[in-house]
Amino acid sequence: MNTETYESMPKTALEQEKAALQAKYNAYKAQGLNLNMSRGKPGPEQLELSMPMMDILNSKSDYNAQEGDDCRNYGVVDGLPEMRQFFGQLLGVDAEDVIVGGNSSLNMMFDAVSSGMYSGFNGCKPWAQQGTVKFICPCPGYDRHFGVTEFFGIEMVVVPMTEHGPCMDAVEQLVNTDPAVKGIWCVPKYSNPQGITYSDETVRRFAALKPAAKDFKIFWDNAYCVHNITDTPDTLLNLMEECKKCGSEDLPILFTSTSKITFPGAGVAAMAGSKNTLANIRKRLFFQTIGPDKINQLRHLRFLKDLDGVDALMQRHKELLQPKFNIVLDTLQQQLAPVGVATWSNPHGGYFISVNVMEGCAKHVVELCRDAGVTLTDAGATYPYGKDPKDANIRIAPSYPSVQELQEAMNVFCVAVKLAALERLSASNI
Amino acid sequence: MNTETYESMPKTALEQEKAALQAKYNAYKAQGLNLNMSRGKPGPEQLELSMPMMDILNSKSDYNAQEGDDCRNYGVVDGLPEMRQFFGQLLGVDAEDVIVGGNSSLNMMFDAVSSGMYSGFNGCKPWAQQGTVKFICPCPGYDRHFGVTEFFGIEMVVVPMTEHGPCMDAVEQLVNTDPAVKGIWCVPKYSNPQGITYSDETVRRFAALKPAAKDFKIFWDNAYCVHNITDTPDTLLNLMEECKKCGSEDLPILFTSTSKITFPGAGVAAMAGSKNTLANIRKRLFFQTIGPDKINQLRHLRFLKDLDGVDALMQRHKELLQPKFNIVLDTLQQQLAPVGVATWSNPHGGYFISVNVMEGCAKHVVELCRDAGVTLTDAGATYPYGKDPKDANIRIAPSYPSVQELQEAMNVFCVAVKLAALERLSASNI
Repeated sequence: MNTETYESMPKTALEQEKAALQAKYNAYKAQGLNLNMSRGKPGPEQLELSMPMMDILNSKSDYNAQEGDDCRNYGVVDGLPEMRQFFGQLLGVDAEDVIVGGNSSLNMMFDAVSSGMYSGFNGCKPWAQQGTVKFICPCPGYDRHFGVTEFFGIEMVVVPMTEHGPCMDAVEQLVNTDPAVKGIWCVPKYSNPQGITYSDETVRRFAALKPAAKDFKIFWDNAYCVHNITDTPDTLLNLMEECKKCGSEDLPILFTSTSKITFPGAGVAAMAGSKNTLANIRKRLFFQTIGPDKINQLRHLRFLKDLDGVDALMQRHKELLQPKFNIVLDTLQQQLAPVGVATWSNPHGGYFISVNVMEGCAKHVVELCRDAGVTLTDAGATYPYGKDPKDANIRIAPSYPSVQELQEAMNVFCVAVKLAALERLSASNI
Repeated sequence: MNTETYESMPKTALEQEKAALQAKYNAYKAQGLNLNMSRGKPGPEQLELSMPMMDILNSKSDYNAQEGDDCRNYGVVDGLPEMRQFFGQLLGVDAEDVIVGGNSSLNMMFDAVSSGMYSGFNGCKPWAQQGTVKFICPCPGYDRHFGVTEFFGIEMVVVPMTEHGPCMDAVEQLVNTDPAVKGIWCVPKYSNPQGITYSDETVRRFAALKPAAKDFKIFWDNAYCVHNITDTPDTLLNLMEECKKCGSEDLPILFTSTSKITFPGAGVAAMAGSKNTLANIRKRLFFQTIGPDKINQLRHLRFLKDLDGVDALMQRHKELLQPKFNIVLDTLQQQLAPVGVATWSNPHGGYFISVNVMEGCAKHVVELCRDAGVTLTDAGATYPYGKDPKDANIRIAPSYPSVQELQEAMNVFCVAVKLAALERLSASNI
């Protein structure tokens, strides 16, 4: 194996290396692979962990919730009180500050942004009637978040991620001075795609924001709140507690779900906020639905029981995910570290590893992989409008493929990263 | 029993009758009743009919759908292909023209109106950017429909219901001449609250509309498509077929659900429309969710199987509902027909009986009932903004109470209707 970085290698050695990699790449391509590392989709063996949940309810079960509501019938628009309590514990807020919904927290975020756009928050006019509306998008970030703001025609302002979370100097500057800035997308624990957990200082600075807009909201998507993949889990300071100290509890809207705890397609989602925030949300909710699927809420409650139940289950997810993350990290380390053409995150939880390849190469790497049968998240997806200004960031999602498939896919990926780098270096040498 | 109508009764007889009714009312009031005829909520014994569905899936089941998708995982945003086929049969359209959602057709209607407001239909600007937007509301109608249009600030134009459906002369006049008219709410089979099924001519006239607005949509809420309560069911002409004959297949958006087939709180909802209409809907859907709860779709499919399965189940619902409707109708006939102070519908299906009491009395009747422990749908609820111009219409929902409770509630109701009428007559005699 080559132990010199490409930068320090003489031109002839680079040409030799490139020829060798091209041959290797062609050999992979000839294998007709069909591997997918594109989405944060739990693997089949993870789904098996929650199969006992499917035995919890049957035709002999009691379908009455704690307060006597028949979960089969209409009503209880905020969700079952005991499920609100469950999510309150998960999110670190009071049960009464929680609304439990259907199977999709993305849908709840979409509707919350829609509430801002067309109903308004905190007694202000709807955002749609206030001219330009801006959201801050810490980048790299989650493509589905950016998709929601793009759908509503909201201008997205990129703020760089640091190892402590979004660059708070930039966030404060924007939020505290520009009344058009109405929101920020946050994945505060094990961020998508870097796996960064916001530092205590970052959380405190969020709580201490003094927004120029009275109707500014922090969209706090705590999707990975219990999703550790190592034995050194991160801890996240409780934003709502910090907000209460600052008198800013109207700022955040918190979201989470059991999608990556039980079943991605049939989990339960929830949101939380201050009394004022939920009053705004409920104005819409009352007209929108007669109530969520309470049978699935009941099934989840009786299966997961409480935070201890969740932790025990997440421990087993960890046992399945950790080896997969290790394959990605080990392969990157072995194949890319020596030649110095990429850097990557080393997360303690979440669903992704973020790789920065040589600038200007990400799109090409994704193409090379695709042509060799390995599907990655589109390059640029971690930036608004799919446009990564440096064309460098690629999100790796190790959860879905098997261990063996993942190793094959990572071998292809590393060859592609090196090949793209060498093509670029030789082009710039000409 | 009195056999003269109140109108023809001499004043002293009216005073005697009033005193007798007041005594009867006071006696009911003293019983401390707690009965509810307010919502179209299936009764507990109806919920029992679908309990075998809860044994369909367990931890040993196969969770792969026909095309191999694992129903537990993310994706399949349009719903399972076989579930689209199922709903296609129920709605009389092709499977590919169906989108299957979560547990709430109301939510799908809300989102469809939202699509019109903020995304636009048929290449037109969003309704919200076109100034005044109007919806036609055939009345009496469904309060939740009117709630959605009220939420979006859409102006509601009342058109009277006839025994054949909405007054089509009025509908045509409005739709074909006013470009601000963007939609109409329809419950075409067993309408809420009258139980009227639109005649073939009405359906054909809907298909033949020539809207002044290019982005006009018929919101065709076929909530009661298989919900017969007699052995002489109505039949509804297939709107989409008629539209195809007229080249107007972009007009309707069809909705239905299994809420009143299986479980109100945990059923499956669906919508359908032309390729153009669904393309407009999908623009939003793609950003809104990663997919619906496919496990519940699978559970429903394996339980209901096909239209024959649905029919067999609905036959059993009918056996439970028919006696309840008969109690309402018989009590109205016995207690109110002789004195001539009310008229009512006699539906072959659906969930409601519509009663017109003496003009100016509906609110008072509902108050009298409430004070005696009998909850009815608010008077006025069957009109936009809750304002019935004649204050005459009351919706009776017989499904939830037991047979015995229903009889008690109807006794109270009839006394209240007569008492309110007599109070009004004596006030006008003074």
